[in-house]
Amino acid sequence: MTTASMGLSRRRVVAGLIGAGGLGALMACGPDVETMSNGRFATNVARDAAADAMVARQATPASVAAANGGNGGHGSMSVAPAAAAPARDWAAMDAEHERGVKFFLAQGKTARGGQRMAPALEDGVKVFRLTAKAMKWETMPGEVLDAFAYNGAVPGPEIRVTEGDKVRVILRNELDESTAIHFHGLLIPNKMDGVPFITQPPIRPGETFTYEFVARNPGSHMYHSHMNAAFQVTKGLLGAFIIEPKDKAKYPAHDREYTMILNDGPLGYTINGKGFPATEVLTAKRGEKLLVRYMNEGLMIHPMHLHGMPMTVIAQDGYACPQPYLCDTVNIAPGQRIDAIVECTEEGAWAFHCHILSHAESEHGMFGMVTALVVE
Amino acid sequence: MTTASMGLSRRRVVAGLIGAGGLGALMACGPDVETMSNGRFATNVARDAAADAMVARQATPASVAAANGGNGGHGSMSVAPAAAAPARDWAAMDAEHERGVKFFLAQGKTARGGQRMAPALEDGVKVFRLTAKAMKWETMPGEVLDAFAYNGAVPGPEIRVTEGDKVRVILRNELDESTAIHFHGLLIPNKMDGVPFITQPPIRPGETFTYEFVARNPGSHMYHSHMNAAFQVTKGLLGAFIIEPKDKAKYPAHDREYTMILNDGPLGYTINGKGFPATEVLTAKRGEKLLVRYMNEGLMIHPMHLHGMPMTVIAQDGYACPQPYLCDTVNIAPGQRIDAIVECTEEGAWAFHCHILSHAESEHGMFGMVTALVVE
Amino acid sequence: MTTASMGLSRRRVVAGLIGAGGLGALMACGPDVETMSNGRFATNVARDAAADAMVARQATPASVAAANGGNGGHGSMSVAPAAAAPARDWAAMDAEHERGVKFFLAQGKTARGGQRMAPALEDGVKVFRLTAKAMKWETMPGEVLDAFAYNGAVPGPEIRVTEGDKVRVILRNELDESTAIHFHGLLIPNKMDGVPFITQPPIRPGETFTYEFVARNPGSHMYHSHMNAAFQVTKGLLGAFIIEPKDKAKYPAHDREYTMILNDGPLGYTINGKGFPATEVLTAKRGEKLLVRYMNEGLMIHPMHLHGMPMTVIAQDGYACPQPYLCDTVNIAPGQRIDAIVECTEEGAWAFHCHILSHAESEHGMFGMVTALVVE
Repeated sequence: MTTASMGLSRRRVVAGLIGAGGLGALMACGPDVETMSNGRFATNVARDAAADAMVARQATPASVAAANGGNGGHGSMSVAPAAAAPARDWAAMDAEHERGVKFFLAQGKTARGGQRMAPALEDGVKVFRLTAKAMKWETMPGEVLDAFAYNGAVPGPEIRVTEGDKVRVILRNELDESTAIHFHGLLIPNKMDGVPFITQPPIRPGETFTYEFVARNPGSHMYHSHMNAAFQVTKGLLGAFIIEPKDKAKYPAHDREYTMILNDGPLGYTINGKGFPATEVLTAKRGEKLLVRYMNEGLMIHPMHLHGMPMTVIAQDGYACPQPYLCDTVNIAPGQRIDAIVECTEEGAWAFHCHILSHAESEHGMFGMVTALVVE
Repeated sequence: MTTASMGLSRRRVVAGLIGAGGLGALMACGPDVETMSNGRFATNVARDAAADAMVARQATPASVAAANGGNGGHGSMSVAPAAAAPARDWAAMDAEHERGVKFFLAQGKTARGGQRMAPALEDGVKVFRLTAKAMKWETMPGEVLDAFAYNGAVPGPEIRVTEGDKVRVILRNELDESTAIHFHGLLIPNKMDGVPFITQPPIRPGETFTYEFVARNPGSHMYHSHMNAAFQVTKGLLGAFIIEPKDKAKYPAHDREYTMILNDGPLGYTINGKGFPATEVLTAKRGEKLLVRYMNEGLMIHPMHLHGMPMTVIAQDGYACPQPYLCDTVNIAPGQRIDAIVECTEEGAWAFHCHILSHAESEHGMFGMVTALVVE
Repeated sequence: MTTASMGLSRRRVVAGLIGAGGLGALMACGPDVETMSNGRFATNVARDAAADAMVARQATPASVAAANGGNGGHGSMSVAPAAAAPARDWAAMDAEHERGVKFFLAQGKTARGGQRMAPALEDGVKVFRLTAKAMKWETMPGEVLDAFAYNGAVPGPEIRVTEGDKVRVILRNELDESTAIHFHGLLIPNKMDGVPFITQPPIRPGETFTYEFVARNPGSHMYHSHMNAAFQVTKGLLGAFIIEPKDKAKYPAHDREYTMILNDGPLGYTINGKGFPATEVLTAKRGEKLLVRYMNEGLMIHPMHLHGMPMTVIAQDGYACPQPYLCDTVNIAPGQRIDAIVECTEEGAWAFHCHILSHAESEHGMFGMVTALVVE
């Protein structure tokens, strides 16, 4: 979630892209980026009319919908009657597509969630203080949405401890509804499991609750609300909970790591709380091993596809795979965490996105669950 | 599907919960449970208005929907314009949430499907007689829905035989449409495969058809309609078909087992034909090994997440995994069966639910694909 | 994708079905097939009214929808109020179901996409020329839809080369919007990766772009549009890109192979661009090993279920599984390719379909992602 440890400045990322992709011309893009950050959606009313026409063009004939039995499956096919398509303004489409990529490559200013939190040390216990509160969260330029957040950001702070650590998480509820935290994946005393009316009373508005436990099972885990959760989690009450093994040799060697929390719902399709072009570029040097920790906090599967080189899946839900395996598209289901190692053998800027294409691209260009891995 | 073999009375389950979770106060809940069983949905019209407002609050701005290109993906984001949210009645939300949990923990009276069927023995053949018929089925308190059922319950009776057994299944069709049974996963003569107009004529209303075959491949299989199946199966024409290996040593040791048939569609999100709080509590003693047989008869994936301890996936579609693996969230796709062993090492009441959170929890509390594993 | 190499004429396929399934009576179906090809949907207006009533019968009560929190999940449950169902005309349902199967088994005339393309050889380079263009594509009898296609068919031509080959793909864009090709799964120079504004400029209407690279990693890969891709790919800009290993011994032995490209969206639920009953019958002789290359180009998962015998999953995304495993339902997520071997041990006509039943069957009979494997 943080690239602080990655040691590459934004300038070098851009330089890398220019070198790798020959995109020098694109980089002289200050003004356009400004336009972009003024709100892609606010300024393209005329384009929206064209978009509506597009939707009509994409429509499945009603006869097919009827044949589907009304049972819906995943309900992805619209049923509007096909309309006459207006002439297509492809140059405007290209320009909009380009604006998004420019903004992304320049890594325009955006508040990031998921920063690692330094615990307070109290009597040998690592203490993390969280506050749940409603706020506004900008998921992409100009898209400021109602969110719920731990400590003012989506995702909430990364909690990272070591196997065997004593941990205390103190949650203050400043929402206008009750909540509770479930430590998803952790072996934990039942009373600390965070399920209202089953393991604890709900934490009501204004109340504070203290969770305390020993970090037993290393791996990539999560913490999130377990009350009105379809609403609270998709609104942003989620974060990474990583337990490092006491014996580091137990974990496959890697030079860098990146946590990728996937979400969908009221905040749109996001990676670490941001939709493209506000997503973060991943960077690595050629030859390095990059550990990616995928975590799905959304309501849908997200098959993440990395261009250019495969990844080796090494762990699921924090448990080492008995037989790591190679792939280029890894399907993460809601609640799952998958760790994969990318051997960064190929130079260049490689797209990295959910391959449910409607989570990643529209006629307005790329959006949502899209980022890139830049190997220099 | 049956806990008859589990040897724990309901009283002991409740006692276990009290001991494990310290929930004694919740257990004095007779009257509330009665209220519950009088129909949560029938009595909360006023709450529904609030729910509608909630939906509006959850709405994704239309601009994001447009950016999705109208192509829909899984169509999970609503497009209603954001409305002003009324003040949130969190105390009412908590109370409703609590009522559901109380009903669940008390395991209120509910008709259960999927009970194991004793076959008739005729000339060395195990004979199972099924009748398909429309009926009303209560999926949760007060929610009585139109269903199709084998022998009057959803799921139909569990059919369990041993590898090498001669089996006869006689189906009488009392529906007002044709049907046929497919024995999903079984190696079977082509004529017995149950696909109308490909392997047999449809079984018309009033007709009876006899399937006969030898049970060849052990494992967790299913039987269900293969005619108008998106409709008939989701309405309830489904059941477990389990073939035990002749050589029991071939199957990993376990102390208990539980079949979990997942379904979605016109009966809602169900586990063994019931939605929370009418789902069945799983129970085990500390140290026991619990075999869970997941079967997905619905139209969606369901990533089942067990709190508190991992499971070891040991078989898929009845075939032993060459490398069993640990996880805490197992994604079962429609048509798949996955067998997993839970080593019940952790005491307490552990939530066990689909991690597509919108299949498991709403602002009215938990619902749908939620149960719990209680380890004493 | 092509059965040209399978050595079975259509006559023999039908003969096999008659022998295997005893379906002789069904085969005298010339006139019905003609009726079918005149348009199932155009001629059954009256049936559609009944279908609408069916949809109402399938509806989930609004209370359940409200309980889902409006968050949608996969949005598969309709919310129309339950209506009184008309008397069900089951005989008409059966007849419609039968018509589809007859058409399918007769393998009525239909244009097929995905035929293997012979490359031009120029200076030791295998050259494939593609043109992207809008066209009409018939997905099933009477269903002629607006599509985008490479070289006039959906899927585009199969590109098949050998590891180490020098490859050139020349794309001419005759669409009215920009495009680009991504070679999904290939290890490829970054400039050839096909992502507009990241690795290349978009290929504008009327322009031609040349991709050139060495085929490095053997396996089942794909090529498809990476511009406005949720739209362009689901409309048909997709194809198989198969790299055979230089050392054939590296690949598990098989007697036949079949590529199965899955898609959903504006062309409906399709296998190789066709919905049942226009899908192609797979054939094999008893004892043969059939390699199936699944590729998902759609926006949804498709768990493909083969009746009658299991398959062994041997590769994912072109990489050999360290531990091949048996199953009868293999879940392919968007962007994934899965290779499986079917040992054709069981004689007969075996249904082979997506087990999201609403992608495969309605009250009008089977449709969409359905085919059959006929073992003689």
